[in-house]
Amino acid sequence: METLLLNGDDVREHASLSEVVPAVEAAFAAFARGDAQMPAKSYIDLPAYNGDFRSMPAYLSTPEWDAAGIKWINVHPDNPEKFDLPTVLGTMIYSDPETAFPLAILDGKELTQLRTGAAAAVATDHLAVADADSLGVVGAGVQSYTQLRAIAQVRDIERVVVADRDEERTAAFVAAFEDEFDVVGGSITEAASCDVLSTVTPVESPIVPREAVGPHTHINAIGADAAGKHELDDGILLDSKLVIDDYEQTTHSGEINVPWNQGVLDDDDIHGSVGEIVIGEKPGRVADDGVTVFDSTGLAIQDVAAARIAYEHATAAEAGYAFDFLGVG
Amino acid sequence: METLLLNGDDVREHASLSEVVPAVEAAFAAFARGDAQMPAKSYIDLPAYNGDFRSMPAYLSTPEWDAAGIKWINVHPDNPEKFDLPTVLGTMIYSDPETAFPLAILDGKELTQLRTGAAAAVATDHLAVADADSLGVVGAGVQSYTQLRAIAQVRDIERVVVADRDEERTAAFVAAFEDEFDVVGGSITEAASCDVLSTVTPVESPIVPREAVGPHTHINAIGADAAGKHELDDGILLDSKLVIDDYEQTTHSGEINVPWNQGVLDDDDIHGSVGEIVIGEKPGRVADDGVTVFDSTGLAIQDVAAARIAYEHATAAEAGYAFDFLGVG
Repeated sequence: METLLLNGDDVREHASLSEVVPAVEAAFAAFARGDAQMPAKSYIDLPAYNGDFRSMPAYLSTPEWDAAGIKWINVHPDNPEKFDLPTVLGTMIYSDPETAFPLAILDGKELTQLRTGAAAAVATDHLAVADADSLGVVGAGVQSYTQLRAIAQVRDIERVVVADRDEERTAAFVAAFEDEFDVVGGSITEAASCDVLSTVTPVESPIVPREAVGPHTHINAIGADAAGKHELDDGILLDSKLVIDDYEQTTHSGEINVPWNQGVLDDDDIHGSVGEIVIGEKPGRVADDGVTVFDSTGLAIQDVAAARIAYEHATAAEAGYAFDFLGVG
Repeated sequence: METLLLNGDDVREHASLSEVVPAVEAAFAAFARGDAQMPAKSYIDLPAYNGDFRSMPAYLSTPEWDAAGIKWINVHPDNPEKFDLPTVLGTMIYSDPETAFPLAILDGKELTQLRTGAAAAVATDHLAVADADSLGVVGAGVQSYTQLRAIAQVRDIERVVVADRDEERTAAFVAAFEDEFDVVGGSITEAASCDVLSTVTPVESPIVPREAVGPHTHINAIGADAAGKHELDDGILLDSKLVIDDYEQTTHSGEINVPWNQGVLDDDDIHGSVGEIVIGEKPGRVADDGVTVFDSTGLAIQDVAAARIAYEHATAAEAGYAFDFLGVG
């Protein structure tokens, strides 16, 4: 039996967002129903190299399918300058839960971008106003591209405002999308007044002020992934309907980790999880909602759900490279 | 940059036990010195499939080298009968700690056998009598082969007694080694009277009685890897110099887990860890020692150390298959 190897191009080609978004939605639902196992992310800190490794194993079972795997990922901020490598690399092993056979090994970097965009899309679908047609993006790094692509799956996005201090990055984003959208570079305030806003920066001091946010803007807060990081003014979190993905991760390393640990906001300020909204246990947007916020930390079940799509379609297309690791079966 | 893929044959060919044994010894030493990071093994239980997944990430730094990686492994006891697959599969990602680049992906099944044999060899080197020349092996499954091969690296083993209720397995073991050793099938009592004994069975009721063990036998208790499993009579553990690999794993799932959790033995009965002996913080065998026991649960640092040997030698030999997962660097 062979294991299918899928590089970044294969993942991008075969894991279409039109399928990854519903797969991630199904994963959130399974998690909310208690049909997922997701041991806590474990970290290995490497102070000598200013980096860390994270292991993210998961199993989930939906009414239609089940799936398992592990993503081994890292954050090494010195990589771009010192080694001409991305800050975040990553490798995903996608396994058959019935036998544990490793069905596929995938580029985890590409997968992470897709499943993170998909999570924002699922939250946007349940929390943005129905006729949302404008998207602001703060931060024009690698994650910003899949924000737009994924959110465009769930709302008819026409106008896009991208805000980044780096003019080259802004221009590259505009160039990538100007054929499909009315996309311009702009200020954070301009971005934050759109119907939907995604923030994808690694900042440790909030850069989105309360007064910049539109009256019914839905915000996907993507950037915070470690203790000490946050992008949004505390006033936004306090005034909004606040939705999380996972309580442990959110309070440890999500957008709310700083104000939550300072006691500025507490559990009563959290409306619920995106999974609870997907399965109808908590309401999504209702008529009198103003600002909504989705605090996305990224769950291992998202990776497994996205990997399944890549594997199934690449297999059907006879794509990838099949390698016999084990010499069995 | 490419990732080197090493299947089971590659691992066996390039990770020679003559190098894996000292590498695992260096890993135990690093762990005892506090120069290793090894988050707790995390488990995903799959009752629907009578199986589980385990993730084992680690980083270690020795005076000469450092290394990192993760092993994703499982136990699916129904695999052989239902799917003609081994009970234990496994995949190892071996990463550069400086950049997190995945240097190699290896068959974890073969690696597990090598590093488990190597751990027994390290313990045997420090705990068996110097002139030990006989080895008993209880259980003739896949792990038994690397027990003999590894222990023969540290003692001049001449006579081998293998005990297994399955005659075919016993005969296969004898046939595999009869050119190199004086090897015979025998009873557990005959095996346990040898200078060194390795037990490699999955039993939940002890099968080695106290009175069977020779006066200065060193025992490697390998089989127990889950709560409820144990192979040795409690009397052996109570009368011996008892050495462990890791306190948490040992008391949770090692040979001593059952009597320790019943209060039959306690922390005062544990002499120390194999790493403490390697670095000289605790004595190994001394003149008046009788029976010694090494309770091996298997540490993630052993996998990383063994993977490093396989990777370095396969790279030098231009072996394996190089695959570009990430399209970077």
